[in-house]
This record gives sequence, C-alpha cells and structure tokens, in this order.
Amino acid sequence: MPVTEPARTRPPTIDARTYAEILQFYARHFQLLDEGRAEEWADQFTEDGEFAQNVKPEPRRGRSAIAASMRRGMDSIAERGLVRRHWYGAVTAEPAGEDAVRTRYYATVFETPRGGGEARVYLSTTAEDVLERHGDGWFVRRRHVAHDGT
Amino acid sequence: MPVTEPARTRPPTIDARTYAEILQFYARHFQLLDEGRAEEWADQFTEDGEFAQNVKPEPRRGRSAIAASMRRGMDSIAERGLVRRHWYGAVTAEPAGEDAVRTRYYATVFETPRGGGEARVYLSTTAEDVLERHGDGWFVRRRHVAHDGT
Amino acid sequence: MPVTEPARTRPPTIDARTYAEILQFYARHFQLLDEGRAEEWADQFTEDGEFAQNVKPEPRRGRSAIAASMRRGMDSIAERGLVRRHWYGAVTAEPAGEDAVRTRYYATVFETPRGGGEARVYLSTTAEDVLERHGDGWFVRRRHVAHDGT
Repeated sequence: MPVTEPARTRPPTIDARTYAEILQFYARHFQLLDEGRAEEWADQFTEDGEFAQNVKPEPRRGRSAIAASMRRGMDSIAERGLVRRHWYGAVTAEPAGEDAVRTRYYATVFETPRGGGEARVYLSTTAEDVLERHGDGWFVRRRHVAHDGT
Repeated sequence: MPVTEPARTRPPTIDARTYAEILQFYARHFQLLDEGRAEEWADQFTEDGEFAQNVKPEPRRGRSAIAASMRRGMDSIAERGLVRRHWYGAVTAEPAGEDAVRTRYYATVFETPRGGGEARVYLSTTAEDVLERHGDGWFVRRRHVAHDGT
Repeated sequence: MPVTEPARTRPPTIDARTYAEILQFYARHFQLLDEGRAEEWADQFTEDGEFAQNVKPEPRRGRSAIAASMRRGMDSIAERGLVRRHWYGAVTAEPAGEDAVRTRYYATVFETPRGGGEARVYLSTTAEDVLERHGDGWFVRRRHVAHDGT
C-alpha cells in the first residue's frame, strides 16, 4: 500500500538503548524527589546545571543552589503532611550533539495527605530537558518546567 | 526452582527496538494532540486510516476527515480555556504481520483551566491500535478508543 | 566539560532488552487485572509467589491464594459498578542474581463509575517486586505494595 509520508511526520528519535537508559534515569530521578532525597536528586544535575520554571522569576543555577531550593520545598511539603508522586510520561527525545539528548515530557504530580485522606491530582506540567552523558551516567544540564494553565 | 508455567502466561511481545520506537511514536503523537497541532497529529495516521470511539456513532475515515474532526474538537477546548494532556500507558504490543503491530493501552486525559484553576482527571479510556511501519516511520492504520464507564 | 560525578548517582540499571520485556510484562499484568481476569493475572506470579500490602496484616502466599483473594476484590468492585485502571510508572530496575530483577515503581489507580460518572484518582501507591525469568516469561516472586498516606 503506497503511502504519502509527509516529511514533517519523521521526527528525530533515539535508539532503544539510549531511550531505555533515559527512562530509567527519570524513574530514579523522580523517586529520589518523592522520597525527600533532595541532595541525591540534585546530584543528577551537572555541577553547572540549571532548573527553571515558568512560575518562578529566576532559574536556579548550580547543583548546590538546586539542592538547597528543593530541600526547602520538600521540608515544607512534609510539614504539611503531604506525600507527592511526580509521574513522568510521553517522553520524546532527540540527539543534541554527542552524548547529549533533548527531551520533552509530561510531568504530573499526585498528592495524598497522610492519615487516610484521598489522593488527587495536584499539578500538570510539561518539561524540557537537555541531558548529558558523563561516564556511564546521565545528568540534567538544563530543565525548563511549564505549569499548565499559567 | 521448577515452575509450572501456564501456557496462557506467555503472550506475544515485540523486541526492544520496536517497543522503543512505538513508545516514542506515541509520545510525539500525544504531544502534537495537546499542542493543538491537529494536522500533524492526523499525519501520523495512514492516508486511509480509521479513528473510532465507542461514544460516537461512526468512525472517522481518512487522514483529512480525522484532521478536520480533531481540529474542531481542539478549537472548542481552546475556546473554553482548557489545557488537556493525553497520557498513554500500559502499552501491550504484538506483531500483526510484517511491519505492523497491534497495541492496547490506557489513555487518561488530565485537564487544567487557564488562569490558575486546579488540574483534574478528565477522562479514562483504553485504546486499541493497528500501527504500520512505512519507511522509517510508524502510522496508525486503525484506532478504537473506549471511554471507561460507558 | 569535566564533571565530578558523585558515586551515589550511579545506580545499577538493566539493559534495554530486559527493560522492554519488563515494561511489557507490567502492561499485560495490569491490563489483566483491570479486565477482571484474576486467574490469568495471578498466573503471572510464581507458584510460591507472595503478595503483601502495607494495609493488610498478612501477605497472600501462593498463586491460588493470590488469585482467590483478587477474585473477591474484583467481584466486589464490579458489583459496585466501578471500572478501575491501574497505571504503573517510574519503573526502576536492578539485577537481583541471574534471571531475576528487583523493581520499584509507582502504581496509581483511576476509577470511573459505570453509567456516565466522572473519572477520578482512587489511590496512589508505590510497589516493590522481585521478578524472575523462567523460560521466556517473567513472573512475580514477591511484591510489596505501600499505599501513600498510610
């Protein structure tokens, strides 16, 4: 069956091995976040990594600043008795030079109050990362998170 | 440890390379949908593709009809000030002849009102696709979406 | 660009082929669960498999006990006119001896009432499995599910 393939339907993709590495990278990354391990989570950024959100005036720059900021956020959430789960999904990925990948994905946060309350959707976002491979691991060089509806 | 394996627990699966291609295909597909790019989204169907839903009397047939119908839906959603995110998950896949794959997956839609409202679950569905590979890309030959609870 | 990689950022991961198998295993596993096929779902445990939850005093032990318990739960849900979808996500995986893998993942349940009601988040959990490969299939040797907020 002949099919006219519009050129625009042929996006760059990445190989299965890299894609599996990246899915596992994000799996660990968001589990660390939700376990309150801010420092280990921030270690998954490069030393000079950047973390920006469309709801904040300034990006956080550098692993230490990113860790400190997330630590404050996590402590506040824990004090309020909330458990959050950051889900990532719909990960597109394309090569961005050697040993680097540009991704875009959905990140949706679910929240459950401790003590028997109901789970609910807390927030829906999209995120764009530049990931770099150093040695046998992946690191976030740059992240931009956009909250839906803002 | 000997284990009696019931024959029914051995489903057909697809190789890692094809599975990674298909996950990336869906990632791009649903991102296009949620960005309001109805025509590019419809280009991911074959020319003679079919899109059916259990809540509609008739399937849409052909890339142009599918694009036109989705364009109307997207414009209506945008007019109402809503941002939707179509998540796909739990993708099973089995070979369906050469260069074709039959998939079944969950598709859940989250919705956030523009202007600061809360995100919520809008809809939970399951979907069944026949995907075909043409050249270096994948296309939807046939899709059937079933809304939960109907 | 030199990067100091903290040793703790190098987690064990598994190869792309095994990861794709496991994602497909879970996809089928949770689809069976949500289709009310308790026996086929339980067949994906080893004969001597174990299923524990932090909200139950005792784990279920053995495929038959697991199937019988799930059958009762499913029938109760169906009687109440509910459709549930178990999503899995953020799957980390590491080798656990030959032909075995230890996973941790998020499992979130969405619920839709039959007859036109709205979908909602029912429950957010994390799960830890030991999976074993026997022949060409994967099986759950041990699962522990922890409900968020309890």
